[in-house]
Formats: sequence, structure tokens, C-alpha cells
Amino acid sequence: MGEASDQIFLICRSCGWRGEEKLNIYSCPRCGSPLELEYSIEDILPEPREILKCRSGIWCFSKQLPSYKYRATLGEGMTRVIAIGLENLDIMVKAEYQNPTGSFKDRGSALAVSMALSKGAKIIVEDSSGNAGIATSCYSRAYGLRAVIVAPKTAPRGKLDLLSLCGAEIILAETRGHAADLAPRIAVEKGGAYLPHTWLPHFVEAMKTIAYEIHYQVDELPDAIFIPTSSGTLLLGLYRGFKELVRYGYRKKIPKLIAVQTTSFHPLYRALKGEEMPLEDENLADGISLDKPPRLKQMIDAIKETSGDVVVVSNNEIKHSLKLLLARGLIVEPTSATSIAGIIKAIQSGNNFNSPMAILTGSGLKMPQRLIELAYTK
Amino acid sequence: MGEASDQIFLICRSCGWRGEEKLNIYSCPRCGSPLELEYSIEDILPEPREILKCRSGIWCFSKQLPSYKYRATLGEGMTRVIAIGLENLDIMVKAEYQNPTGSFKDRGSALAVSMALSKGAKIIVEDSSGNAGIATSCYSRAYGLRAVIVAPKTAPRGKLDLLSLCGAEIILAETRGHAADLAPRIAVEKGGAYLPHTWLPHFVEAMKTIAYEIHYQVDELPDAIFIPTSSGTLLLGLYRGFKELVRYGYRKKIPKLIAVQTTSFHPLYRALKGEEMPLEDENLADGISLDKPPRLKQMIDAIKETSGDVVVVSNNEIKHSLKLLLARGLIVEPTSATSIAGIIKAIQSGNNFNSPMAILTGSGLKMPQRLIELAYTK
Repeated sequence: MGEASDQIFLICRSCGWRGEEKLNIYSCPRCGSPLELEYSIEDILPEPREILKCRSGIWCFSKQLPSYKYRATLGEGMTRVIAIGLENLDIMVKAEYQNPTGSFKDRGSALAVSMALSKGAKIIVEDSSGNAGIATSCYSRAYGLRAVIVAPKTAPRGKLDLLSLCGAEIILAETRGHAADLAPRIAVEKGGAYLPHTWLPHFVEAMKTIAYEIHYQVDELPDAIFIPTSSGTLLLGLYRGFKELVRYGYRKKIPKLIAVQTTSFHPLYRALKGEEMPLEDENLADGISLDKPPRLKQMIDAIKETSGDVVVVSNNEIKHSLKLLLARGLIVEPTSATSIAGIIKAIQSGNNFNSPMAILTGSGLKMPQRLIELAYTK
Repeated sequence: MGEASDQIFLICRSCGWRGEEKLNIYSCPRCGSPLELEYSIEDILPEPREILKCRSGIWCFSKQLPSYKYRATLGEGMTRVIAIGLENLDIMVKAEYQNPTGSFKDRGSALAVSMALSKGAKIIVEDSSGNAGIATSCYSRAYGLRAVIVAPKTAPRGKLDLLSLCGAEIILAETRGHAADLAPRIAVEKGGAYLPHTWLPHFVEAMKTIAYEIHYQVDELPDAIFIPTSSGTLLLGLYRGFKELVRYGYRKKIPKLIAVQTTSFHPLYRALKGEEMPLEDENLADGISLDKPPRLKQMIDAIKETSGDVVVVSNNEIKHSLKLLLARGLIVEPTSATSIAGIIKAIQSGNNFNSPMAILTGSGLKMPQRLIELAYTK
């Protein structure tokens, strides 16, 4: 970081490549590894009264984020921390489902779209029919950009409806894999910006704001944070945010970061523990379904440094936690339930936590029928 | 208010009746008028840092609310104020769609269910298939109470799904009117508490918290607040909250309260202006569809005292504003769009506002298909 400057660089920790930030560079041009952002930040956080008065979402922490000419926001962030009791456990939850389009992805889209907007993009391309696609569509629309979303043709109607609602042009691909291949090519063809949420470092960087917010919201930090983990943007963003809070003397220690994955997809567990869990075909937590996360090594490092862990939960365990949450009046998506399932499993395995926190990633208001099916039928 | 006491009374401003608060008294036992709550409050608001750390929803302002033994919360409130530009207008919006079940009704249900819980109710009965029913179901469920919702059999499937999600028992009545007749009888039969959101003063009282929050969120209060208005809980709650802020010296003046109603239902306009608008049969703003609001006189008084007004908007105007909001990336329900339509209409009619605020009452994530139909088809 060092001297104050508005310049932003992309850097590769694997091969040492470093270059100025440009549109459509989302992996190392030299070695193909995922990139990080390098930019200067300030070490003084806003006062509580400024936070309450701030109307610009993640940009309430603009001094701690990359500096862009245009700053897209829909009022994301400052989601509540609430305390809930589930099965005799006292759990703090960070209510990310309160974000404007219903998921934590709004933070990443706010930052990524700001970057694209500031660099002159007119068209945004993304390959996701889930929360990231919905967030990116709405943030693009809000700033007069066209969003083109490449989705697999198997995507559920409800999700496509939400994409249409924010005016996205939807291009259907044969499979999820085809969508990922097609999206960057469409971006090039149309002269647009491809913002792949699993690769683009902005999706990591924006999640620092969750750590900052938690800093304001609790006296004592949670001793462990349970994080539904796929590409690792949440986990790594929390890590980076808390690391900065420690570096600048606001906090003493980063909470244990505990990744939660599923029996269907658990590459991090495999890499960290060197073993495989029995696989399940069906994947209830559709928000975390990535077999080859680009930032695997960074995730392992963050988990080790914070004495964290990775927990794998089954579909039955997800269903059980989803039922607990619904019975507690909280309408969240199945992916959110994995973090609760992770806490229950970690405790059943003999771990002890004084004040565990679960990140509830997304709203269930988008999918009532699916939730009824999961929670109330066999 | 006067001396500090935890006692809560129900009072009737029409005939002077006054009695201790009891379950299932929601209109004056002597003259049938709507009731108000009388209770003591403190004149010192929490510090900003306490607000940020508070995990108990409306109960962050517990010293300004009736005191109950049990306090139900799902983390409602502290919704964002954001600034948006629409058609060359700078508008502040209060993002009530961020509430846990997706609407401002969560505040009212938190207070009403707390009262019922504290008075020993085991079953909660409500006649609404809309936001109030969903809120009451989820808040009841969260505290181990059974919710019975009486809904007209014409209620849309999506709404019924959301009621089921929070474990409500749904009883279908022939019409909306039948539902209202049936609900109190079911409450008596089952020994439960009937919490009619159009009558129960708790639904008004809880909305004071919106005024308090705005106090923390803006330096200068908006000069006018546009409020989708049906039974008047929002309008009257804002009025009471701001009135207390003025009384205790925190603020100088109550903003102009401007009720927004529709061509389909505008009893307040009729009463205040003595004229009728051309009626439309279809009612897009299904959240504000009440022909005989119990608190009509109180609403008129609040509007007059604040030099406010009432604006009536048509379905086309609602559609237009809904499109503007969607194009701005904000997924809200049609009722929310009425407040934007109200601002546009008031300005077109020659009014001037420095800093108008719109209350965006509820989330559109519950109804993507309906919104697509309204915004993107003829």
C-alpha cells in the first residue's frame, strides 16, 4: 500500500506480475493465476454517526476501497447483526439477505460495476443465473449500462425472471460450462466488460466491508465466523478486512474463519485435509457449487493463519438447518443454511465456540416454493 | 405520558374511555372508535454507537416504546436511507423493503406479537394474505406461537406460499370481508390473540421507529415525506415519532406528511378535499386498498398539522414509477412505487420540495412475475 495514490494495480502473487488495472484482465496474463488488487487505503475509519448518515453503501468505506471516478451503489451493506437461539446455541448472524437484490453479492457488484463504469464500459457481461447475475444486472441498470447475462438453459424460471426484472439481456448456453466459455467472448465481441465473480478480485475486495461493519456492530468480535464457501470471495474478503483492522490497531485478532462446503462440492476440504467426503449428487446449496475455485491456495492460507477450519455438510444437514431458520422466522436461501449447519456440525465434532457468527448470504424471498419443497416435504 | 411507569393503557380519543391494555381489545369497548396506546417513554435517545451495536430491531428504541416482558424481533428496522435520481429529481428513499420479511409491516408485527406473547397468548390470528400476514406469521413462529391466517380464497399462490413458509395455518374465506369477520371469531374460539393491523394501535406505535431512524440518518430532515397510505399506520407512526423528536428538542419541525393513495382507494383524499377522483377498478397497489380506514380523522389532523397533503395516483402513474425504480435497479412492490408517483405528481402540480423522501414499503423479490407483467408488458 504505502504512499497515498489513486493508482490501482493488478498483481499476481504466483509469478510476481504487476500491471495497471484494465478492463477484462481478470487472471494473470503471464501465468493464469488469480489476481489481487493493490491500492492505497487510509487507516482511519469513519465515526459511528457518519456510518449512520452514510447513503452510499459500500462507499461508506471509500477510503478503504479502490478509488474510482464513478461509484455505483443501491444502498448495499450495513446489514444487521442479530442474535438468534437455535438448538440451545447462541448464534450471531450477519443478515446479508437484507442487501438490495437479496444477497451479499451486491457488495461485489457495486465495486465491480464501479470499476467498469469508471473505465468507460457500456456493456457488462456476466455468466451467472444466480445471485451474482441478479446483482450485476441491477447495478448495471442503475448506472445506465446494459447487462448481458449468459446462463445455462437449465436455469430456473424464477431466477431468469429476476434477471429480466433488472433489464438484463439473457443469452442461454447449453451448460454452466458453456456459459463460462461464452461470456468472455461475448464481452470481446460487444466491446463490453466481463466481470466474472469467481475471478475478479473486486468481488473479494468488496467483502472487506463486511468485516468493517462487524467491527462497528459488536463489542467483542466473534471467535469464529462460519462462511458458505465456493470461490472464496466472502472468506478472503473477511480475511482482508479483519487483517486491516488488526494492522491499524482497531482490533487485536482475526476471528477463526471457518469455511463451510457441501458433500456435493468441497474442493477446499479436499485440499486442506487431503481426504474426500462421500459425494452427493444433488446440491441443495446452489450458491456454493464450484469444483475448481481459482483462489484455493489463498483460502488455505487464510484458514491456517486464523486457526480456522473447513466443515463439510450434507444435504440432510442443510435441510435441517433450513428448517431451524424458517422455524425462527428467517426466510433465507439454502446456501445460507449451510453456515448454521456448519456451526452445528463443528460443535457436534467436539469444537467449542464462545460467540460463533454465521453469514446468512441470501434471501429466501426469491424462492418460496423451493423452500417449502425442501423444508416441508419429504 | 407523565410519571415513569411500565403500565400501558388503551385510550379512546373519541369518547374518553381508558382501560388497561388487554388481549383482544382493538377498538373502543364503549364507542367502537380506534384506540391509542398510553405509556411512559424516556426523552433520551441512544448514542449512534449504541444504535450500530443494537441487535434487537425496533427494541433499539425500547425506551420510546411500550415496555413488554417479551420482545419479539427478527432484526427489523435500521433500513437504509439512500439518495436516488429519478427524472431529474433528487429523492431520498427509506428502504423498508430491507426488513426481514420484506416490508415495513415487520415493525408492527414485532410490537404486536411482543404484546401478545407478554400477555400469554399461544395463538396469533390475523386476516391478511399480504405483507402483514407474512410478517405476523414469521414473528409468531420465531417465538413459538402458532399463527392462524385467514385469507380470501382469491389470494395469490405466491403469497400463500410465503405464509406457509413461516408455518402459518391458513384458513380460506370467501372474500376479504369474510376473512375480517371470521378472524376475530377464530381468535375467540381458539383462545388466541387477534392482531388486526388496521386497528391495533401497536401497528401505529411501532412505526415511530422509522422517524427515529431518519433522525440519525440525515443531517436535515426531509421537507416532505411521501407515504403510501391505507389504514394510516405509517403516516400516523411517523407523525408520532417526529412529534416526540420535536417535543424533546432533537428536531425543530415535523416534515410535511404527504399521504399517497390510488384512484382505486382514496378515502382520505375524499375526506380531506371533499371530492372524488375518477375511480379505477383494478388496483395495482394492493398494499393500500382500504375503503374505510378507522383512523381517518387522526390522519386528517396529522396532515393538517404538518401542512401536508394527500395525492392520488393512477395505475398508469404507478406503473411509470415502478418502471423508473426497476430501471434504477430497485426491486420493489407496486405499493412502494406509489410514493414515487406521488412525488412526481405533486411536483407536476406546481409544488416544490427541497428534499423529498419516499417510503419504499416493500420488496418486489416476492413477486418477480407480477412486476414483469406490470413493467414490461402492455
